[in-house]
Amino acid sequence: MEERILKNYARLIARMGVNVQPGQDVWIEAELDQPAFVELLAEACYEVGARTVRVDWSHQPLQRLHTQYRSEEALAEVRTWEEEKLRDFAETLPCRVYLLSEDPDGLCGMDAAKFTAAQQRKRQIAKPYRDKAENRYQWCIAAVPGAAWARKLFGPVPDAQERLWKAILTASRAMDDPIATWEAHNRDLWTRCERLNSLGIRSLRYTAPNGTDLTVGMMPEGRFRGGAETSLRGIVFNPNIPSEEVFISPKRGEAEGVVCGTMPLSYQGQLIEDLRFRFEGGRVVEARAGKNEALLQKLVAMDEGAAFLGECALVPHDSPIQNAGLLFYNTLFDENAACHLALGAGFCDTVDGFENRSLEECRALGVNDSIVHEDFMIGCAGLNVDAETFGGETVPIFRAGNWAF
Amino acid sequence: MEERILKNYARLIARMGVNVQPGQDVWIEAELDQPAFVELLAEACYEVGARTVRVDWSHQPLQRLHTQYRSEEALAEVRTWEEEKLRDFAETLPCRVYLLSEDPDGLCGMDAAKFTAAQQRKRQIAKPYRDKAENRYQWCIAAVPGAAWARKLFGPVPDAQERLWKAILTASRAMDDPIATWEAHNRDLWTRCERLNSLGIRSLRYTAPNGTDLTVGMMPEGRFRGGAETSLRGIVFNPNIPSEEVFISPKRGEAEGVVCGTMPLSYQGQLIEDLRFRFEGGRVVEARAGKNEALLQKLVAMDEGAAFLGECALVPHDSPIQNAGLLFYNTLFDENAACHLALGAGFCDTVDGFENRSLEECRALGVNDSIVHEDFMIGCAGLNVDAETFGGETVPIFRAGNWAF
Repeated sequence: MEERILKNYARLIARMGVNVQPGQDVWIEAELDQPAFVELLAEACYEVGARTVRVDWSHQPLQRLHTQYRSEEALAEVRTWEEEKLRDFAETLPCRVYLLSEDPDGLCGMDAAKFTAAQQRKRQIAKPYRDKAENRYQWCIAAVPGAAWARKLFGPVPDAQERLWKAILTASRAMDDPIATWEAHNRDLWTRCERLNSLGIRSLRYTAPNGTDLTVGMMPEGRFRGGAETSLRGIVFNPNIPSEEVFISPKRGEAEGVVCGTMPLSYQGQLIEDLRFRFEGGRVVEARAGKNEALLQKLVAMDEGAAFLGECALVPHDSPIQNAGLLFYNTLFDENAACHLALGAGFCDTVDGFENRSLEECRALGVNDSIVHEDFMIGCAGLNVDAETFGGETVPIFRAGNWAF
Repeated sequence: MEERILKNYARLIARMGVNVQPGQDVWIEAELDQPAFVELLAEACYEVGARTVRVDWSHQPLQRLHTQYRSEEALAEVRTWEEEKLRDFAETLPCRVYLLSEDPDGLCGMDAAKFTAAQQRKRQIAKPYRDKAENRYQWCIAAVPGAAWARKLFGPVPDAQERLWKAILTASRAMDDPIATWEAHNRDLWTRCERLNSLGIRSLRYTAPNGTDLTVGMMPEGRFRGGAETSLRGIVFNPNIPSEEVFISPKRGEAEGVVCGTMPLSYQGQLIEDLRFRFEGGRVVEARAGKNEALLQKLVAMDEGAAFLGECALVPHDSPIQNAGLLFYNTLFDENAACHLALGAGFCDTVDGFENRSLEECRALGVNDSIVHEDFMIGCAGLNVDAETFGGETVPIFRAGNWAF
């Protein structure tokens, strides 16, 4: 990919993504796949005044080895200095960039039970620090092409990684003058949210020819959001590049009916296919899948909150990513190709006035809490969504997969 | 390079290099150059019973950016969690593997003053932890071919990295049955040390046609060592792969005369050429170089101990590495191509009975202390070394660059 385009992408992430402020620290997490791009990104952060940029590299194949050879105890271990690093994060709130490039099949065949159990124990230790930092720092997830990921999408061709660069940058609206493009895109998403929030939605009912018929309750205080967010310190940032969704955290405990997944879910390096949930009283009471059903059930059982919904996201069926006709096997992209729901943690910042509410208040209002947050796609060409308002009206939101208004 | 050979090399490092004991932790530091080899190495460590293997990746080009953009304050910063990690190391004593592959010119043109000042401040913080761990843990420095390093040696040819693999593995005696080869090699080095130690050497006098005439005093308690070492916990390990040298820490304060370098010194990513030191009372009183003299003088002035000798190492001129006719631009190899001295910290484990002596005692006997340890080559085809013994005899040690016995 041309260096000029990559530089623009790096600047998009640094300026629109995390929006580094002069004197801020930046932590970048990256696989080993694109070191030259990580250099561009680090430089883009320094250019706008970052005090320090730290890169934490990881290498997915080592995760397989660790899981194979370590005891569960050793795998779950968080050393004192690692916890101290979490504390440093929660106290100093550096900007965080997560550059994804993993092989979607990279963890296949691993001892998932051992890995999951260890992850769960580690997340329990990390959780108080994450909770403390929530909504207070700028973060951004974006992608770069890994070799194995590119091969998965395009086969063993020499230009696979170059093709994945193009797909990523196109889906991310980063090919041409990305900062101006993103400013316009954010205005569009903001306008849609304003419209939805003006309706006073009590519940959303999803229906589709595949058997989906699910009604999800909303909090009176709930507010749809999309695109840019604002941290509690008042800094606007874009947490996902790409982002096509308008989303809200539903009210915990209010979900009734059946919903069918419309795309495979890539979870812990494995694909869960043809998933189907039945909800009662907000909770998953039945979890089925055509492939990897046991893994799906493990996900649902991760903790008390993993069986409840944390997010409802609306994405038109003719979104740019869906139109690319490509399954990325990566949630960051695939979730922006279609309407989706998420099991697990909700977002406090979809509660009105969250700036002045504590985490506990938000949870008491109905924002779900969990150590997981897993999106699954339910959008399709036949999806209808109807809102029932607190005023008793029914308002069409989606018709045949696309916005009804 | 064939996977079979690389697996053997990984096992050499895991078993002979750090000699991982069941239940021990291993920390590997590596550049991004050879992730597949790092996987083999991690697996080799797990195979012999490592409890956890941790890999800390680094990427030299980022160091340039950090030095360019950070303030000296930010560059020198050691966060609380980083110091906690040092403490963890000093307390739990994991095995440490350092895999070198850096570009010898990778830091050229950087603000050396800022970088050095920051390094010095960071090392001051790290030093008490390193002192506490000294001689108590197993460590090993070995090399893998980086792309830029290979290009530097072999030019912009497609097989440069493959050629550097071969050069590294040959110099490291790792091409063929490396573990048996290293067992024999260690026996040979051990026999030479026994011979030297039986003489009771009071001083070594180096003379060569290039103007070198230097006499270096030895401690009565000094003991030559080479090849394998034994940690204070009784575990045998090989700290350098390759290692051709027999070495000793001289007595601080006893070095008189002039010594001329015979190979360029690669220091902080830059080459110091044609160096020449004059010593009085053990201290460098004049430091000259044909190229990068200012950098050499910075090295000598790093701290009080940087102007004193920490090591005298004997390597025959027809060593395997010298015979390869290749300047590696890397001290690990180049120091094993020729006799060398080091400025800076000495090694307590070349003091007789160091196991039962404190660090302070060793330093009082004459082991030099510094935050640096920089080898420089003085071996050449014309080098003679003579020992004066405590019994008053003069014994030839080297004649015309090679062992005299």
